[in-house]
Amino acid sequence: MGPHPAVADVRRAVREALADIGEGRLVLAACSGGADSLALAAALGFVAPRRGLRAGLLSVDHGLQPGSAARATEVAALAPALGLGFGEVLTVTVGTAGGPEAAARDARYQALAAAADRLGADAVLLGHTRDDQAETVLLGLARGSGLRSLSGMAPAAGRYRRPLLDLPRNVTVAACRALELAFWDDPHNADPRYTRVRVRSRVLPVLEQELGPGVAEALARTSKLARDDADALDEWAGTVFRDCALSDTGGQVTLAVQGLERAPGAVRRRVLRRAAIAAGAPSGALSAAHVLAVERLITHWHGQKALDLPGGLAAVRRYGTLILAISPIA
Amino acid sequence: MGPHPAVADVRRAVREALADIGEGRLVLAACSGGADSLALAAALGFVAPRRGLRAGLLSVDHGLQPGSAARATEVAALAPALGLGFGEVLTVTVGTAGGPEAAARDARYQALAAAADRLGADAVLLGHTRDDQAETVLLGLARGSGLRSLSGMAPAAGRYRRPLLDLPRNVTVAACRALELAFWDDPHNADPRYTRVRVRSRVLPVLEQELGPGVAEALARTSKLARDDADALDEWAGTVFRDCALSDTGGQVTLAVQGLERAPGAVRRRVLRRAAIAAGAPSGALSAAHVLAVERLITHWHGQKALDLPGGLAAVRRYGTLILAISPIA
Repeated sequence: MGPHPAVADVRRAVREALADIGEGRLVLAACSGGADSLALAAALGFVAPRRGLRAGLLSVDHGLQPGSAARATEVAALAPALGLGFGEVLTVTVGTAGGPEAAARDARYQALAAAADRLGADAVLLGHTRDDQAETVLLGLARGSGLRSLSGMAPAAGRYRRPLLDLPRNVTVAACRALELAFWDDPHNADPRYTRVRVRSRVLPVLEQELGPGVAEALARTSKLARDDADALDEWAGTVFRDCALSDTGGQVTLAVQGLERAPGAVRRRVLRRAAIAAGAPSGALSAAHVLAVERLITHWHGQKALDLPGGLAAVRRYGTLILAISPIA
Repeated sequence: MGPHPAVADVRRAVREALADIGEGRLVLAACSGGADSLALAAALGFVAPRRGLRAGLLSVDHGLQPGSAARATEVAALAPALGLGFGEVLTVTVGTAGGPEAAARDARYQALAAAADRLGADAVLLGHTRDDQAETVLLGLARGSGLRSLSGMAPAAGRYRRPLLDLPRNVTVAACRALELAFWDDPHNADPRYTRVRVRSRVLPVLEQELGPGVAEALARTSKLARDDADALDEWAGTVFRDCALSDTGGQVTLAVQGLERAPGAVRRRVLRRAAIAAGAPSGALSAAHVLAVERLITHWHGQKALDLPGGLAAVRRYGTLILAISPIA
């Protein structure tokens, strides 16, 4: 008798995500003890020895809830039973920058990256599912900031891999039950102060009810298409940037107006954003409105004055060139 | 004292949408008697004489509700009071193809286009607002069919213009009230059998409540970015198609594999879709899965056999070329 279908699905996803990892290399699973990452860690424990890989588990203690240290230790202690070579607790200090969710995420990724470096791991697996992806796309949609925010989380980015991004969350729950693994329900996952929790518990159910049961899948599909589209447009913007850049030194970028005029708006605005950041604008502070204002120096030129941008940057058009530089422009 | 701000907003939007229409030309407003299109028609009645344009009103009787003919006649009779040269009722017969909403829309656009031709109009104005756009984007998102469906309705497409696409619906209601124009509440707009009605009355309010009040605006912004991005990618795909096409006759398109290999996935799949349609595949029947299958002849080539596509089309790879042709391929 083969494994439970849900267990087989998770194992297959992990196997595919590791196809390019060489024999003898080390792969880590980040595990909170929740159903998603527990099913992931169990699948890695099954797949790794069969693929000739070494494998371990990382359990992050965010120190945000009473008992979090004890739970992280318990989760790390599961490693041998899951078929993993070792389990390790990473204790992090969560700051406040960007709100509680972003601060916890930043601290977590920093700790995972440091552990991967220290242990010499080729990949760190993360347990995000298709439902997480759907939530991320909806959050991006609500920001209205375009293709990149609609593309959600990458299946692979640097060392990180998200093997479960095509699987619905209930598959991981079913896999844990089939393997008789007790998983942990994080009370944060039900706390409506978090936007993501409200998207999960209130927004997606209404979308499914009114638009049909395939919404999470449609959102995940949208994210894939958006990622490929964004990659293609970034590639084009990179080409135009290289073709138009007359000079590109720290603090000053000069572009040929003619090349910018010829590019479609979507590409031109990507080039201008890239140029402003290369010249020193902080990307977080550079809004779409800023980029549109710079674009008007190209598309609606009537002798405007220099334009102020974040980071003390100025944009000015002179003799067929667009100059982005730390002001004042000499 | 100037006009009410809402009235001024609608007039400004109409003025900008008509900026390129030459003096003495005819512009029509499609008007159902609802707040959106009534505010639009009134604004056209104000703007047209000041711009030296001729203007008229078209009122479509879909014949779907008791009393619809009488109401269409009443709406058409408003024309002189709104400052429009004439009002005309267009009586249409709504079929069943694609469901009730799509069938009514098809019949309406066909009648509007025929009237515009007959009357020699340069533009037909439609009263869709930012809220309609937000609904359209959400419907596109739920389909998961990518950038084009996220781009919603075009501000201008052929003769059609949608001047109110940046204005929230409540501005048109306020404009009608300020002008003391009694508008009509279509009972269809409250009928939960229509998906769009459920999006308006149930989905968007929940999104606004959980994600913040700017959701409709964010969706409209997403649609603009998506439209520009889709246009740019279509332009790129057009270039690659021309560069790769070794022959393109009715029923058979032959493409060079090498050029397709070099293009990013998002562009390659657009080229393949375009080529399949050029060779005779019905665009409605050609799914993303079909296009992905054809793509595997390029990206995962291991000597596959010919592939069947809708419309009796086959795709086959031979000696460095991809042939899309009405099967059998000789």
